[in-house]
Amino acid sequence: METVAIVGVGLLGGSLAMDLRRCGYAGRILGVSRSPREYPAAFSSGAVFERAAAESDVIVLCSPVQSIIADIERVDALVRPGTLITDVGSTKSAIMSAARTHVKRGVFLGGHPMAGKHVSGLEHACEGLYSGKAWFFVRTIEPDPPVVREFVEWVGRIGARPLWIGEEEHDRSVAMTSHLPQLVSTALGAALARSVDPGVARQRCGQGLPDMLRLAESDWALWRDILTSNRLEIRRMVGEYLAALGEIEGMLSDAASVEEIREAFERSQEFARVVREKR
Amino acid sequence: METVAIVGVGLLGGSLAMDLRRCGYAGRILGVSRSPREYPAAFSSGAVFERAAAESDVIVLCSPVQSIIADIERVDALVRPGTLITDVGSTKSAIMSAARTHVKRGVFLGGHPMAGKHVSGLEHACEGLYSGKAWFFVRTIEPDPPVVREFVEWVGRIGARPLWIGEEEHDRSVAMTSHLPQLVSTALGAALARSVDPGVARQRCGQGLPDMLRLAESDWALWRDILTSNRLEIRRMVGEYLAALGEIEGMLSDAASVEEIREAFERSQEFARVVREKR
Repeated sequence: METVAIVGVGLLGGSLAMDLRRCGYAGRILGVSRSPREYPAAFSSGAVFERAAAESDVIVLCSPVQSIIADIERVDALVRPGTLITDVGSTKSAIMSAARTHVKRGVFLGGHPMAGKHVSGLEHACEGLYSGKAWFFVRTIEPDPPVVREFVEWVGRIGARPLWIGEEEHDRSVAMTSHLPQLVSTALGAALARSVDPGVARQRCGQGLPDMLRLAESDWALWRDILTSNRLEIRRMVGEYLAALGEIEGMLSDAASVEEIREAFERSQEFARVVREKR
Repeated sequence: METVAIVGVGLLGGSLAMDLRRCGYAGRILGVSRSPREYPAAFSSGAVFERAAAESDVIVLCSPVQSIIADIERVDALVRPGTLITDVGSTKSAIMSAARTHVKRGVFLGGHPMAGKHVSGLEHACEGLYSGKAWFFVRTIEPDPPVVREFVEWVGRIGARPLWIGEEEHDRSVAMTSHLPQLVSTALGAALARSVDPGVARQRCGQGLPDMLRLAESDWALWRDILTSNRLEIRRMVGEYLAALGEIEGMLSDAASVEEIREAFERSQEFARVVREKR
């Protein structure tokens, strides 16, 4: 892995370059951006997509899902045989399907680090972003070629936890642990915006409301691609959530049934305790 | 205000005593607890309810709503005329109604600091808990007697922001900014607990899920009283939330309509930005 191209230099791509350097990667890191920009010191230089694809051993596609798919459709014709093409896209089924169709000369490895934030862009990139975070990997071939093993080792070295998974299980899993929480937060802001002035809410709320609205600040372009590419799993989970909250709403219909909320409350409490346990 | 009784020495009551001392209050602080306990150094001593009521100029009721109401029903017979009786209860209509019926010799001032956490109990009490937080007040008489003005001054001195409000507007407001976010978090854990093992979710999630589940860890005894005493306003807001999320769910029904989610997404984004702005 003498040359790595990072295509899409935002929160994830920028942080990846910084973390590779911090952890001792001494090869070339080429940054590829849609528009001209200043690259952080971790990058060796900027490059156009075609040159980066031709000169790199590893290409990491770090943009929203639809852009990753567009890059997958054109990258294989540009790379040397055996080049590793990997990505950090939030959903995996559509990407793996595109990769299986279009990547023949290169080797494709699906990837997804659980390191996103409600803010995006290079200005939020930082060292240590991946520390302690899960990084999903989806194989296209077995056994793993050396370049795959080497890249996954680097992912471990920057502090992430590699997790091997199938694309369908990945998408079902993130629908639960990432996409549902996003829409739950989004709907909270959308519903409240109809009932209360945000400045009044801000003046009167405690810490719970702003915390529950953090995800709602996320970027639509990223989420449009996620919602589109994982629509069915997300819809199913939102349906289950609506049923759970609808049950609670029903129990508010008279004073005597409020006590029935206790079961869901305590089930949720126990679930939250485990999820939120310090590692 | 030479003697203050704090009835219920948990997160709010304990922190109030610590903050009064930190900010220079030199009078007596009596702690009243249901069971024998060690009091933090901020307290002068523990006392039984009857003695504390008889000897204090200000009595602060710091327990869940139903216990506050039970204390209001018995306190007036014990106090000296003109004693300030105030509270930190999460809802105000039921409490103000009890106070208007039962408090005749004392002066009642409804109170509610927005300083709760998902954890409760004296072990989480700390100095500075009230700093920057709204502290709602509901009057029973005008103009404010000197003891009310003095207590509200102390609330400002410990860093809270006194906000005067009517009880109905208070309860409508906290249904939006506190009670809805709580149930949204509770339903998230309750729904996910049916679909995924919490240990697996913990291993695979990013930071969003644990943050969205923080409120779900809250104490049921506190929330049973809140849900019971503000049932109708909460039910209305949960209904509006279900409608907002239901609309989003409907837009996931086919790929072409996903773009329609944008409007709700951006409305929520803007709302969240204002609510979450640094003070």
